[in-house]
Amino acid sequence: MSNGNKIVLSHGSGGKRSRDLIRNLFFKYFGNEILSQGSDSAVFETPAANLAFTTDSFVVDPLFFPGGDIGKLAICGTVNDLAVSGAVPKYLSVGFIIEEGLEISVLESVVISMAETAKQTGVEIVTGDTKVVNKGKCDKLFINTTGIGELDPKFKKISSGETIQAGDKILVNGFVADHGIAVMSVRNELKVQADVLSDCAPLNKLIAEVLQVSENVRFMRDATRGGLATVLAEIVQHKSFGIHIDEEKIPVRASVRGMCEFFGFDPLYVANEGKVVLIVPADDAEEVLEIMQKNELGKEAQIIGEVVADHPGKVVMQTQIGGKRIIDMLVGDQLPRIC
Amino acid sequence: MSNGNKIVLSHGSGGKRSRDLIRNLFFKYFGNEILSQGSDSAVFETPAANLAFTTDSFVVDPLFFPGGDIGKLAICGTVNDLAVSGAVPKYLSVGFIIEEGLEISVLESVVISMAETAKQTGVEIVTGDTKVVNKGKCDKLFINTTGIGELDPKFKKISSGETIQAGDKILVNGFVADHGIAVMSVRNELKVQADVLSDCAPLNKLIAEVLQVSENVRFMRDATRGGLATVLAEIVQHKSFGIHIDEEKIPVRASVRGMCEFFGFDPLYVANEGKVVLIVPADDAEEVLEIMQKNELGKEAQIIGEVVADHPGKVVMQTQIGGKRIIDMLVGDQLPRIC
Repeated sequence: MSNGNKIVLSHGSGGKRSRDLIRNLFFKYFGNEILSQGSDSAVFETPAANLAFTTDSFVVDPLFFPGGDIGKLAICGTVNDLAVSGAVPKYLSVGFIIEEGLEISVLESVVISMAETAKQTGVEIVTGDTKVVNKGKCDKLFINTTGIGELDPKFKKISSGETIQAGDKILVNGFVADHGIAVMSVRNELKVQADVLSDCAPLNKLIAEVLQVSENVRFMRDATRGGLATVLAEIVQHKSFGIHIDEEKIPVRASVRGMCEFFGFDPLYVANEGKVVLIVPADDAEEVLEIMQKNELGKEAQIIGEVVADHPGKVVMQTQIGGKRIIDMLVGDQLPRIC
Repeated sequence: MSNGNKIVLSHGSGGKRSRDLIRNLFFKYFGNEILSQGSDSAVFETPAANLAFTTDSFVVDPLFFPGGDIGKLAICGTVNDLAVSGAVPKYLSVGFIIEEGLEISVLESVVISMAETAKQTGVEIVTGDTKVVNKGKCDKLFINTTGIGELDPKFKKISSGETIQAGDKILVNGFVADHGIAVMSVRNELKVQADVLSDCAPLNKLIAEVLQVSENVRFMRDATRGGLATVLAEIVQHKSFGIHIDEEKIPVRASVRGMCEFFGFDPLYVANEGKVVLIVPADDAEEVLEIMQKNELGKEAQIIGEVVADHPGKVVMQTQIGGKRIIDMLVGDQLPRIC
């Protein structure tokens, strides 16, 4: 059969071919009781009265990169957004936008990666949608994932950060800038041997461990596009406190630092996909650090700074050469289509 | 400022430009208490223990068409998927994938249309995401909407259709095939004067009225891609009942019928964006028809057929010329990028 191994427009028609793709590929790998109902909407019961709800589209180029792929990214990204809100990620929707002509084997690899990552994180893919656009009208594959998490009321204030106060400590769970450098290293325009893997990982279990030892976590956010710097700058914006960080405490791999210097990137602004910034009361900081360092995804965790009453609205970094530098949000775009 | 009125890559960087776009465009029009928190996840309380959850991506070409636009479509599509499950649509997420170079005024028109439609339907847009891809890597604008609805337990069986039985009546709320023909009429390749408007509309209020007069509605589905025929064929697949429909009862506008004949489309397979197929007990059918016909979106509603014990797994249509025809799912793709 001609084109039997490629996506054709009729895979997105809503008719027989769409149905076959759904049954033979998506149900096969994502299969669970709710999804297999095949209804317009997934229907389920939730015991929680407080929900977290978040969405992300993924357009990373290339689809496969050292340490991950668009499928793993699409699960981790949304799981992490829920987890940093203090919620337990439970249900995901998946929306595929596929370019006509994509090899079905490529789609299958991505779907398998999504299924494995979902299983690892304990979330279920319960509903989905597939659109196919003509060749040249999108770039291979875009994926949207939208997630629902259940939120224990005692963590309700984490997502707003309203309890942050001067004296709180700021932690990060490991090396920054790996994801951006890993993706760039395999871009056509920049083919270099970097030997850097993306840090793409689901953080929900690490975060659950932290919340078990410290119920008073003030705030968490995953540092994705815009990097660590942009997250910190956002935290202090229009606030009556500032942030002080210490450059020598920020974990950056030597190889990543080298690549950044070579290409003129600042690692603080390069994207991560498995890094969470935590703000915790000073009294809890050492215990949180310890529990993080016991987890594979937090081995290189560090206390990188603190919330201060000085310079409200500003992030100031003590540099390794002994100076001070103001850290602002990313202006412009260092690395397009990084996630 | 050069390019000040166009989307640039840095609008998707996660940095300052992203933030400005979110504040000045999305918050401005979508603004509500939950969205304005600006957290990674929207956090809200829901009284319902039963939720419906659905996702849809929209890639319609062109972005604006007679009777609607991609923004209106993106709200109605997801609202309708929730409503046909028997749920009350409550919360939506929105994910934009934007082509570099899109006029910001075009995006603004779409956003205004989304905001108006959301208001009309009573749903809130509570979380979102924006990605920008390089020029030529997508076609202007794709939108994903994912929705959460609250489901009264007494309607829990509607989405599965498990209570459908022989003797039930099948209704549709009006003229079919308007959406597909309206979009095609303004496609570059097929510029004809059709004077047909898309039927794109939120059906949640019509459906709520029906559920008030008939708690025993067996099943509902909106007939989008694949048309009325594909929905009916899906309902009977692997089932112990069949469906009989009467061609002369199926509402098709004369102008749409003419266009379909001219271009070789079968109106039963052409997409709708404001049509719901309902299956109700025979005893309730007349009352449901009456209540539908009182609603602007159901004025042309008809009882088009019934569930039968004969020919299980098959949809058979009594044709206007007196014959019988088996109605199967759409094979191939009549009209790509119709939604």
